[in-house]
Amino acid sequence: MAANTGNMQVYSMILTRNSEMRKKLWEEVHFKQNMVLQAPLHITFCADFNRFSKWCDYRNAKPGYDNFLSFVTGAIDAILASQNVVVEAEALGLGTCYLGTILYNADKVIKLLKLPQLVVPVATLVLGFPDESPALTGRLPLDAVVHDEYYSDFDRKEIDDLYKELESSKETQNFLEINQKETLAQIFTEIRYPESNNVLFSGKFLEVLRNQGFVKS
Amino acid sequence: MAANTGNMQVYSMILTRNSEMRKKLWEEVHFKQNMVLQAPLHITFCADFNRFSKWCDYRNAKPGYDNFLSFVTGAIDAILASQNVVVEAEALGLGTCYLGTILYNADKVIKLLKLPQLVVPVATLVLGFPDESPALTGRLPLDAVVHDEYYSDFDRKEIDDLYKELESSKETQNFLEINQKETLAQIFTEIRYPESNNVLFSGKFLEVLRNQGFVKS
Repeated sequence: MAANTGNMQVYSMILTRNSEMRKKLWEEVHFKQNMVLQAPLHITFCADFNRFSKWCDYRNAKPGYDNFLSFVTGAIDAILASQNVVVEAEALGLGTCYLGTILYNADKVIKLLKLPQLVVPVATLVLGFPDESPALTGRLPLDAVVHDEYYSDFDRKEIDDLYKELESSKETQNFLEINQKETLAQIFTEIRYPESNNVLFSGKFLEVLRNQGFVKS
Repeated sequence: MAANTGNMQVYSMILTRNSEMRKKLWEEVHFKQNMVLQAPLHITFCADFNRFSKWCDYRNAKPGYDNFLSFVTGAIDAILASQNVVVEAEALGLGTCYLGTILYNADKVIKLLKLPQLVVPVATLVLGFPDESPALTGRLPLDAVVHDEYYSDFDRKEIDDLYKELESSKETQNFLEINQKETLAQIFTEIRYPESNNVLFSGKFLEVLRNQGFVKS
């Protein structure tokens, strides 16, 4: 019952329970992250204008959804639905984890799950009964994400204040030591999300949008 | 506390309470839809790599987030957060409505709310205390969006079955009469979401991504 665009419901979810397929996804898509093998259920959420366009075809209506806006529309429907699944699953005592790696290897997911034209995966969720209760990860102060009336840009002092707690935590100090870096930001820019990867995977994902019919040139 | 990518929290929300600004948004962005003027609070959710990149700049780390993948990453963070706001707001008795029109006129929102480079709006939510309790809008049977193990594409009979209830409803019959159309699908393809609009707004939104620094060419 999540909100969606014009009640078109232009998303889909593919449930993966089969252990061989979960192993393939773990190996070929998700860089062998442990939770992918451990969790008994994967849900792949997709922007999907295939079903809607087929309906139009069968109803003497010419669909016009092979374009970028329609991809964004479908992606939003898919992500809204995914978060309702998370809220419901956690209310039932399940543990959940989103896998951002789906964006890097969307092409492989499309082949493995046999996704047709106008269907592009945008989020993977793995779910299971947790055998631990880890502490919640911290968040920046609300001022980092909430702006009143206008976007108020950040000067150096504000950035220092917003990141102070995160940067001074024990966990961060450990990260710096393990990774031999001077600042936490360098762990993001040099190890976790370096520009070279972002550029590479931007190209790959745009190629996926072209191949699936959402982008023309 | 919504999930987000690598705990970077690459999103922001701008709160609009000022009645003059709400009127401007109603008129210039949201095609004068009533609820925009009525609701006392708007929240504009944005993909935002500005704050994170500034932090990197101040920490001797070179940010590399002026690319398409980073936009998608920020958009997903923004939409996840927005849906948690919806769930929380509705639990408190508030009514909420997403406005898809934000995607059509993102350029105007950027000017009005003074969004800097690497910030792009992807969802607007209006919130208020409802003075009515409308019936929930219907949804297609779950089989329309849930696939088991592989994407199972739809033949004509399956499409007929999935859309039967929606198409035979009294509401649909009214729509067809008012709009003088033969099928419900035609109301979508010829009136609500016609190809010409989708192509026009695809170009506009891609231009916004270029202007805000997420797409190069």
